[in-house]
Amino acid sequence: MTIVQIQNASLRLRNNKIFELFVVSIIILSALLIGAKTYPIPDSVMQLVKWLDLAITLIFLFEITIRFIAEENKKRFFHSGWNIFDTLIVIVSLIPIEDSEMALVGRLVRIFRVLRMVSIIPELRMLLNSLLRAMPQLGYVLLLMFIIFYIYAAVGATFFAKINPVLWGDISISLLTLFRVMTFEDWTDIMYETMDVYPLSWIFYLTFIFLTAFAFLNMVIGIVVNVLEDEHAKERAAQDEADGKISMDDLAKEIRSLKEMLEQQRKD
Amino acid sequence: MTIVQIQNASLRLRNNKIFELFVVSIIILSALLIGAKTYPIPDSVMQLVKWLDLAITLIFLFEITIRFIAEENKKRFFHSGWNIFDTLIVIVSLIPIEDSEMALVGRLVRIFRVLRMVSIIPELRMLLNSLLRAMPQLGYVLLLMFIIFYIYAAVGATFFAKINPVLWGDISISLLTLFRVMTFEDWTDIMYETMDVYPLSWIFYLTFIFLTAFAFLNMVIGIVVNVLEDEHAKERAAQDEADGKISMDDLAKEIRSLKEMLEQQRKD
Amino acid sequence: MTIVQIQNASLRLRNNKIFELFVVSIIILSALLIGAKTYPIPDSVMQLVKWLDLAITLIFLFEITIRFIAEENKKRFFHSGWNIFDTLIVIVSLIPIEDSEMALVGRLVRIFRVLRMVSIIPELRMLLNSLLRAMPQLGYVLLLMFIIFYIYAAVGATFFAKINPVLWGDISISLLTLFRVMTFEDWTDIMYETMDVYPLSWIFYLTFIFLTAFAFLNMVIGIVVNVLEDEHAKERAAQDEADGKISMDDLAKEIRSLKEMLEQQRKD
Amino acid sequence: MTIVQIQNASLRLRNNKIFELFVVSIIILSALLIGAKTYPIPDSVMQLVKWLDLAITLIFLFEITIRFIAEENKKRFFHSGWNIFDTLIVIVSLIPIEDSEMALVGRLVRIFRVLRMVSIIPELRMLLNSLLRAMPQLGYVLLLMFIIFYIYAAVGATFFAKINPVLWGDISISLLTLFRVMTFEDWTDIMYETMDVYPLSWIFYLTFIFLTAFAFLNMVIGIVVNVLEDEHAKERAAQDEADGKISMDDLAKEIRSLKEMLEQQRKD
Repeated sequence: MTIVQIQNASLRLRNNKIFELFVVSIIILSALLIGAKTYPIPDSVMQLVKWLDLAITLIFLFEITIRFIAEENKKRFFHSGWNIFDTLIVIVSLIPIEDSEMALVGRLVRIFRVLRMVSIIPELRMLLNSLLRAMPQLGYVLLLMFIIFYIYAAVGATFFAKINPVLWGDISISLLTLFRVMTFEDWTDIMYETMDVYPLSWIFYLTFIFLTAFAFLNMVIGIVVNVLEDEHAKERAAQDEADGKISMDDLAKEIRSLKEMLEQQRKD
Repeated sequence: MTIVQIQNASLRLRNNKIFELFVVSIIILSALLIGAKTYPIPDSVMQLVKWLDLAITLIFLFEITIRFIAEENKKRFFHSGWNIFDTLIVIVSLIPIEDSEMALVGRLVRIFRVLRMVSIIPELRMLLNSLLRAMPQLGYVLLLMFIIFYIYAAVGATFFAKINPVLWGDISISLLTLFRVMTFEDWTDIMYETMDVYPLSWIFYLTFIFLTAFAFLNMVIGIVVNVLEDEHAKERAAQDEADGKISMDDLAKEIRSLKEMLEQQRKD
Repeated sequence: MTIVQIQNASLRLRNNKIFELFVVSIIILSALLIGAKTYPIPDSVMQLVKWLDLAITLIFLFEITIRFIAEENKKRFFHSGWNIFDTLIVIVSLIPIEDSEMALVGRLVRIFRVLRMVSIIPELRMLLNSLLRAMPQLGYVLLLMFIIFYIYAAVGATFFAKINPVLWGDISISLLTLFRVMTFEDWTDIMYETMDVYPLSWIFYLTFIFLTAFAFLNMVIGIVVNVLEDEHAKERAAQDEADGKISMDDLAKEIRSLKEMLEQQRKD
Repeated sequence: MTIVQIQNASLRLRNNKIFELFVVSIIILSALLIGAKTYPIPDSVMQLVKWLDLAITLIFLFEITIRFIAEENKKRFFHSGWNIFDTLIVIVSLIPIEDSEMALVGRLVRIFRVLRMVSIIPELRMLLNSLLRAMPQLGYVLLLMFIIFYIYAAVGATFFAKINPVLWGDISISLLTLFRVMTFEDWTDIMYETMDVYPLSWIFYLTFIFLTAFAFLNMVIGIVVNVLEDEHAKERAAQDEADGKISMDDLAKEIRSLKEMLEQQRKD
């Protein structure tokens, strides 16, 4: 009986608006703390920061425990990616780390606690989900873009490696250099350098810029059209609802039945 | 009685097209004066500029007084943000300032008088209002973008602070550096510098660019869809008006009543 | 009688497809000649280029004369901006110029002959016209953008003139510098320079970038929505045509007249 | 009889999903090999790479033979651009090349084998086809843009050639420099240089940026509108299908025939 009582109490606490606001402010405090640590701070304050950090970890532990107890089906709790993320962040925060290598990991985990903002605010969670949902539709465009990048990187590494090994040494460096060219970051310096050896190498850069710009444009337009179509579908559904779902077909059937009635009348 | 007469005279003057044009030209003159002051001008002309400046302030004071008197409900006058803005600009312009510190404030106030262009031309006021109305809808996307920036700035300040304190010294400088990376401004120089120490740090920059570009794209698409939806709603309303608001439902009802009439006829 | 004959011959020639193609190839030849002149060419070839240039001018003179004669209403000929442009280009090309100052004008006029491509190909003329038609709708957004630029330039020239007079010396130089900031061209160098004196001046640059980006976005969206609306209007008109312009209202009227007939029948 | 059997076996093999997957993995292996060659590799591994390369070429030869045999109409096989491309790639790969000049061509051909990814995956082929289909619609905008570029390049080469022959030496270099200006790549350095001689040359750059940005915008909007229209047309067709293709006209005809029946009845 007590277990059910605890579960109900947890459920009430989890759904409590004030508790949610409290957790959000703890996350903001944790974010500010992370920011504060990047400034040079005296040792005395550092001690306070450490205690605050521990307090935040314990509050997060408490909150995730409440959420776990409140969940009726314990298995389903770990079906949500966000719950797994939250649990991992809390567990790693609890491990005391002294080693300088691991200390960096500890700091990283504390930084990722800011992402809990997304897991706790439903609107942000929905926004991120909708961003992720748009990804697979773009899969083939991204693959095409990668093929373009790969071919140009292979050509670049084959011809320009001797001119400037820092930029074209091997295929992975060439890929990075091409990404740089795509962002127009000092791309003419790179071009002028290779044009000294291969005067026609401007063709390489211009075709690359055109192809990637064109593929990128296509991707953007793809997303816009997808989003607009979704909106249209919703709109049409809403309109059908408003119209009482009476279609032209229904009207035509009604008129045809009228005719039959008249025919009948005539025969009588 | 005289008060009512003054109010009516003010109302007539305020709504007078020529008076409006006069005020607009005074604002343009004030803008030109501000521009002129940035050039080296001889002292004799400077004196003229000062007198012109005073004249403009007095005309603005006169205009705002007219507007205030013309307003029937004096309290409502200060409900409009633009009226408060205009009044503040005029009052601060009137304060004689000698102190060099305050002189700069005086110059700033004179510069902001150009914004009165927006408060006086209704089309610009409407444009700005529509821009501001679009803001809250983007709130969550901006929040998500800030979270991305904050996390990357924290990571940057943690790992790269020792490499280049000018760019990554603390979290606020890191935020500025990341904004620079987002505008593609010499971002590869920053990247190559950190890649000397952490060869894999290109992942940091590329994921950041992808995430912000993706979120930014999402924001733009969000605005486009919102604007298009508003237009569609207006269009649909206009079409319904044109159709005399007769829906499929209405037609179906008419046909059904026809059928009933026939049924009745048959029975008779 | 002969005048009418000449006019008819001119009309036939003007509307002849082969003549149009001939003129287009002359324009292309003239464009190639302009390009050729930018290379160092031997004097013997230069002589040929000069003769070709004269031949092109004479052909253009012939063509414009044909077009003028073919036009029935001579006054309407100069109502078209393109005709005035063509005539001016030909007349200025005819003036023999020796003076080095004027020689440059002569070269410029020859370069602008390439624009005749637009005046001769109807599709390009239509494209340009549609571009120009979109301009006035954007008038207020451009005005708002200019006000933003002017205010920031005034603030920049007031505060930063002493830091770097080359970039912020007076308001016109400041406007150019701000345009540079808007294109993200080495804008951080400009910012870091002023941040040494005014550490908070990053606010100046960031708000400027946000405001102009936002206004620019608004402008783009404005054009997209306008274009889409035009398309929708055309589509709707086409659909109405296809539907035989029978609206819901018409249907409702038909049904109502049916009812009246039945009522009549009943009474009989 | 055996020929038909071979053809059927080839057809079965070509349409086999596992065979397709096998070919895709061979293409990926070939891409990885190309990437590997850009790294310094010991001679022993180099030997392995050469054998692998030969194996890939032979597998590709086998695959294209299968596809050729499977095709019923041998002539139609070479009507597809992709088949010609595949055949060429395989044939050139087979030619043994020793000459250092030709060796580069051999390497290029091996790089272009990655493009076989597009020829083998139908979704990528469709994507590329839809990209290519969008091109002709943009023809006139591209022509207009080229005219703008050409005129500005001619003006630039005429006036700035003496200031900096590296950037403005002749019309083809000027075209490249203008493309650089369009991507905002260090364009102010180019501008400041010419402004020292012609203080008003900023007009040249600003009008160029505005014109190309405007034309580019127009092109993008053109594509968006085209794509959206296609979608709308598809949507409308789908809706008509769903409505059983009953239009307002059909309904009006039905009602009119009803009326006639009633008229008839009355007369009887």
